[in-house]
Amino acid sequence: MNFSSKLLEDAVAEFAKLPGVGQKTALRLVLHLLNQDKSDVEKFSASISKLRNEIQFCEVCLNISDHTICQICASPKRDHSVICVVEDTRDVMAIENTNQYNGVYHVLGGLISPMDGIGPSDLQVDSLVERLKNDEVKEIIFALSATMEGDTTIFYLHKRLKSFDITISTIARGIAFGGELEYVDEITLGRSITTRVPYTNSLSK
Amino acid sequence: MNFSSKLLEDAVAEFAKLPGVGQKTALRLVLHLLNQDKSDVEKFSASISKLRNEIQFCEVCLNISDHTICQICASPKRDHSVICVVEDTRDVMAIENTNQYNGVYHVLGGLISPMDGIGPSDLQVDSLVERLKNDEVKEIIFALSATMEGDTTIFYLHKRLKSFDITISTIARGIAFGGELEYVDEITLGRSITTRVPYTNSLSK
Ligand SMILES: [Zn+2]
Ligand SMILES: [Zn+2]
Repeated sequence: MNFSSKLLEDAVAEFAKLPGVGQKTALRLVLHLLNQDKSDVEKFSASISKLRNEIQFCEVCLNISDHTICQICASPKRDHSVICVVEDTRDVMAIENTNQYNGVYHVLGGLISPMDGIGPSDLQVDSLVERLKNDEVKEIIFALSATMEGDTTIFYLHKRLKSFDITISTIARGIAFGGELEYVDEITLGRSITTRVPYTNSLSK
Repeated sequence: MNFSSKLLEDAVAEFAKLPGVGQKTALRLVLHLLNQDKSDVEKFSASISKLRNEIQFCEVCLNISDHTICQICASPKRDHSVICVVEDTRDVMAIENTNQYNGVYHVLGGLISPMDGIGPSDLQVDSLVERLKNDEVKEIIFALSATMEGDTTIFYLHKRLKSFDITISTIARGIAFGGELEYVDEITLGRSITTRVPYTNSLSK
């Protein structure tokens, strides 16, 4: 593209780094911002900078939080004997939206993916094992995407956790194979939690 | 959505204000930024803030520029007797990409749209008329989208400009009705400039 301004070119280049944003979309977004009041653009810019600099991760469940312990982990109303293991904060939000779950969470921060070079050590696995040692946990629910990576992660975690005296279940597969958890509608997702089934390690056979 | 963090919620809300960006997309973009290095996020944030605060508009053609006069208007290699009238900077970029045009530009900053309450006084019309009075302009080319708004704008501008002793042409309509100029491929756009036709005011009949 022939930019008439280096400032414009720089801003477009930054937007075009975002996933799913091409050059033309980036230009449209940047020109939109140029048309806004300076104070609004400053608010936009500051919200991102502030988020990145001040964000914390809950010391217990590793979810994104404004405090050292997140609201869910800090709540006495939640059932701390049930831990729902999820990939990222979007999954926590999706499950919270169903209003079907009253336990706590553990955010892995990803899924095992040999193709992408992501192994167990890149995920919050050890911290999960520590929680099982210390807390009075009775049940672990795997709420991971019904993908190869999700299944691989469950397979690995089951091996790591089976020595503990806890129930291990996965959310019911109302989700089509290949379905990303975050795009599942609330009813399906809520039902798949209430009808969760004991984990039988079908991959190991 | 149930956000686990106010900082996260604020950043998502800011992204969701962008055109064509919904809540889920905004969340995906923000989480992507959270995974980047602090310095990269700072660069992203700063590029937007800097652009909005430091951007200038060329005093001659009103195109986005880093200087008071843009590179095109300042170039002795360009033919300053031909002015191509466009809606916004994206159209300048699109036409420059064709390498078919060696004149200069005038950026209106929009199109007349009674539906949206945009009238001639909201656009850079007076400054165009001033250029015709002062400069040695021989030809005006209208390169506006082939939409109702584009045609209305040409109709109005033609009335304002016809008393001047200049050729008025429009780019050839290789563009389907309703086509947005910025999405036209380079070959079609380049050809439509070289085969431009004298403006016959068909709307006024
Ligand atoms: Zn927590
Ligand atoms: Zn200029």
